[in-house]
Amino acid sequence: MVRFFVNRVRVSYNVVNLTGSGIVENVDWLEIKRKADAWIFEAGKLIRNSFNGDRTITYKSHAADLVTEMDKGIERFFIKNIRESYPDHQVLGEEGYGDEISDSKGVLWIIDPIDGTTNFIHQQTNFAVSVGIYHNGTGILGFVYDVARDEMFFAEKSNGIYLNGNKLPSLQETVLEESVFGINATWLTPNRRIDHTKLLPIVKRSRGTRSYGSAALEMAYVASGRIDAYLTMRLSPWDFAAGKILIEEAGGIVTTVEGSEISLLQQNSVFCGKPGLHEQVMNEIILGKK
Amino acid sequence: MVRFFVNRVRVSYNVVNLTGSGIVENVDWLEIKRKADAWIFEAGKLIRNSFNGDRTITYKSHAADLVTEMDKGIERFFIKNIRESYPDHQVLGEEGYGDEISDSKGVLWIIDPIDGTTNFIHQQTNFAVSVGIYHNGTGILGFVYDVARDEMFFAEKSNGIYLNGNKLPSLQETVLEESVFGINATWLTPNRRIDHTKLLPIVKRSRGTRSYGSAALEMAYVASGRIDAYLTMRLSPWDFAAGKILIEEAGGIVTTVEGSEISLLQQNSVFCGKPGLHEQVMNEIILGKK
Repeated sequence: MVRFFVNRVRVSYNVVNLTGSGIVENVDWLEIKRKADAWIFEAGKLIRNSFNGDRTITYKSHAADLVTEMDKGIERFFIKNIRESYPDHQVLGEEGYGDEISDSKGVLWIIDPIDGTTNFIHQQTNFAVSVGIYHNGTGILGFVYDVARDEMFFAEKSNGIYLNGNKLPSLQETVLEESVFGINATWLTPNRRIDHTKLLPIVKRSRGTRSYGSAALEMAYVASGRIDAYLTMRLSPWDFAAGKILIEEAGGIVTTVEGSEISLLQQNSVFCGKPGLHEQVMNEIILGKK
Repeated sequence: MVRFFVNRVRVSYNVVNLTGSGIVENVDWLEIKRKADAWIFEAGKLIRNSFNGDRTITYKSHAADLVTEMDKGIERFFIKNIRESYPDHQVLGEEGYGDEISDSKGVLWIIDPIDGTTNFIHQQTNFAVSVGIYHNGTGILGFVYDVARDEMFFAEKSNGIYLNGNKLPSLQETVLEESVFGINATWLTPNRRIDHTKLLPIVKRSRGTRSYGSAALEMAYVASGRIDAYLTMRLSPWDFAAGKILIEEAGGIVTTVEGSEISLLQQNSVFCGKPGLHEQVMNEIILGKK
């Protein structure tokens, strides 16, 4: 587990990029980026240390207690640091230690301390720390950190997407017939949120479906091209806040399953994917036009 | 990507373990283990080098050609080495360069040079080299090597299962309601091989389903406890030969979906999982008793 912090953060985003865009004001995004990266790395260390070196938690009940404690502890760690450095920023977190958010004005941090808690308990891998930082509702910095594998997916607005400091290519158009599709079996079998029969052509027509059990990671995989699309019927803002920034910066599309814009302040369905593919699946499968 | 070869292979298996068991004869299993491990590591290096360092293959068609070439090349590499060292051993491989196998007498190597070729093409991760070595039909050495993540899952008969040289605990009994279940959406939606409605309770009653797109890895994950069970309707011997050894050595159960013994010489459905859970799912879901 080696992490070259200094090499990894590519310090090329700064206020100059956004001059005239109306989303900058007096915010030092370079400093925010550095601090967020450092805090996320620190959070990852705290989580890894909880595994006591061997990463094998034999008793699931012990792991369940651990994840609850870790979730709360890591969220408090972020909030304490953000409050100290940026008392005027808002924070929205899964565990509820942040602010009551009624609008997305100013700088808003949206944090999931451990996304994929079932994986954390059962696998001690395939979970992530997710941090999305928005300004007046626009995604500026997105971090999804796969703690166990030390993979940091990072994007900053107008400056590209990176995996462990290496710039990734933009997403290219594709079609369903050449795609690997991220979708859990829940949505392909009878459920309360969508007529699953409508989605069955995804299974038949794609090259295959995958399901990893962490929305933040699945969106990071879309952003980095490991899967071509991801669809899920219910996520909270902390599940998708960072992933949305990653995917959009990579040139992908993120909407609700109805094709509308996602709200940062409530639960949403999420359908995200490569250009071309997103439109094709919306039209041919979800909306049923052809 | 660091691999401590000397530390990783735990040289504690030897013919003494099997004296009197009738499966030893004049076979130097310690040497076979060392050679197999070295060849698999070498195969992994060849595969990684094909990514040219950046592991991002932008053009899928290029990747498709690459995987075809790699599959064939790696299989030939194994067969050449095995033939030179062990001219009396039989080899069964996906690409068909091995022997025509009509029985599992003697020492039989069953090799999948790249398991998870769709992942190889789309992700450049989540694929594995799989090597199972049997003696008169009994699994003796099983290797599943996750090349991109440098994770070697290894088991030897009567001497335990290891991940990168660290001994893993035996699998404990569990129940469906506390399980993460590996199953692809293909088998939970209308398909030619099984009445999918029968399997739907797996989705409803478990803690969640996962699908990774490599049977060898999914079986290695069952063996190491990352998932609790895995069910698939059609695998070839090279897909499951190593995974079966891993799971059985870890104390898990591997059968066809009908609950019968798996044949090494033909395609099978595979249902594997932790003790207790395997029996519960067979009885309550697959056979429909309650």
